[in-house]
Amino acid sequence: MKNCKDVICGKNVQIYDFTNLYGCHIGDDTKIGTFVEVQRGAVIGARCKISSHSFICEGVTIEDEVFIGHGVMFTNDKHPQSCNSKGLLAGVEDWTMMKTLVKRGASIGSGSTILPGLTIGENSVIGAGSVVTKDVLNNTVVFGNPAKVKS
Amino acid sequence: MKNCKDVICGKNVQIYDFTNLYGCHIGDDTKIGTFVEVQRGAVIGARCKISSHSFICEGVTIEDEVFIGHGVMFTNDKHPQSCNSKGLLAGVEDWTMMKTLVKRGASIGSGSTILPGLTIGENSVIGAGSVVTKDVLNNTVVFGNPAKVKS
Amino acid sequence: MKNCKDVICGKNVQIYDFTNLYGCHIGDDTKIGTFVEVQRGAVIGARCKISSHSFICEGVTIEDEVFIGHGVMFTNDKHPQSCNSKGLLAGVEDWTMMKTLVKRGASIGSGSTILPGLTIGENSVIGAGSVVTKDVLNNTVVFGNPAKVKS
Repeated sequence: MKNCKDVICGKNVQIYDFTNLYGCHIGDDTKIGTFVEVQRGAVIGARCKISSHSFICEGVTIEDEVFIGHGVMFTNDKHPQSCNSKGLLAGVEDWTMMKTLVKRGASIGSGSTILPGLTIGENSVIGAGSVVTKDVLNNTVVFGNPAKVKS
Repeated sequence: MKNCKDVICGKNVQIYDFTNLYGCHIGDDTKIGTFVEVQRGAVIGARCKISSHSFICEGVTIEDEVFIGHGVMFTNDKHPQSCNSKGLLAGVEDWTMMKTLVKRGASIGSGSTILPGLTIGENSVIGAGSVVTKDVLNNTVVFGNPAKVKS
Repeated sequence: MKNCKDVICGKNVQIYDFTNLYGCHIGDDTKIGTFVEVQRGAVIGARCKISSHSFICEGVTIEDEVFIGHGVMFTNDKHPQSCNSKGLLAGVEDWTMMKTLVKRGASIGSGSTILPGLTIGENSVIGAGSVVTKDVLNNTVVFGNPAKVKS
């Protein structure tokens, strides 16, 4: 009971039910929880955990050994609109995709939202419920809305 | 693999899998993403995008050409309770539904929560991860928790 | 169209479609909404409403007559990681589960995230979109990120 179309999967990938994955790469031994959507072009490394209710969009690259909590929303568009200036449904020509990179060993807490175009550093920790609006350096803990380094 | 009961749909509506829609109106050319629930009585206009993981409750009216991001939660009850004062499961007689109106061309960023009883203005923009607690004027950008106009 | 494995259910429990429940207890007359996951070991009391898109993890005990809004994320691990220090997928031996207790009659607003190891008091109210980082006393209203008592 899952949708899995044009997905390039490594070995021992576990994909739970009620998931919608298409056109993405998933590395060895990675687990994809229930109610997760991963869009075309997203790349997820090896030995990651992508927890339930999360959304990984096009333009997101997640390196190896990354933890993504539950209900984490990635974004790739700074100015999302339903329609373009002509009143037609916005298509690929109407927006600029902004890429996001989550580096090796990072941990993104549940309920977090990640604004587009950011780099989340190696072994960094994003506290649960954060809204990440800026790059996060390696080995750094941030949290809050907007997410900041603990001071 | 979707639930769609008593839904009045316009032309060219696209409804993705794992959705739960009942008793609602959906306008022409609108797209409803994966893991979306739309409750009885909700009205969604034409040429809208309702992104994955979002919840549109009873009492919400969304005009044409509105973008709703991923994981957006609408609400309609200021004091939600499981049971009434008699210890019985709360029913329709135990609460006041507060209506929400999202006006034409608005864009609500992913991971936002919208408190009940609000009007979100025409062509307004709600930044990702916001908690909207007050009306939003037309052509206005707000963000944060609580969402405020950029100062 | 639901997954329900090793669940101990009371009388008149209502479980909606696209749910993933396993190894948990659910009390009499409780309703479990669409897109909800309840993990092994979680305990939910009688006459509760667990609204759509919410995640109830292992280690969470919810007493009777509790309202859980839509898109509420519980957590049970203060330092979630995908892999342990040996680079292997983290298992039960690699983390300490922190328990959460939600006491009778509490109401947790939609879009909230609950950090691990907390007690949410009797008849307390968590405003929508909150991030709860500390215990909440009985009969207390908190909201915001981090959630605080209204001052």
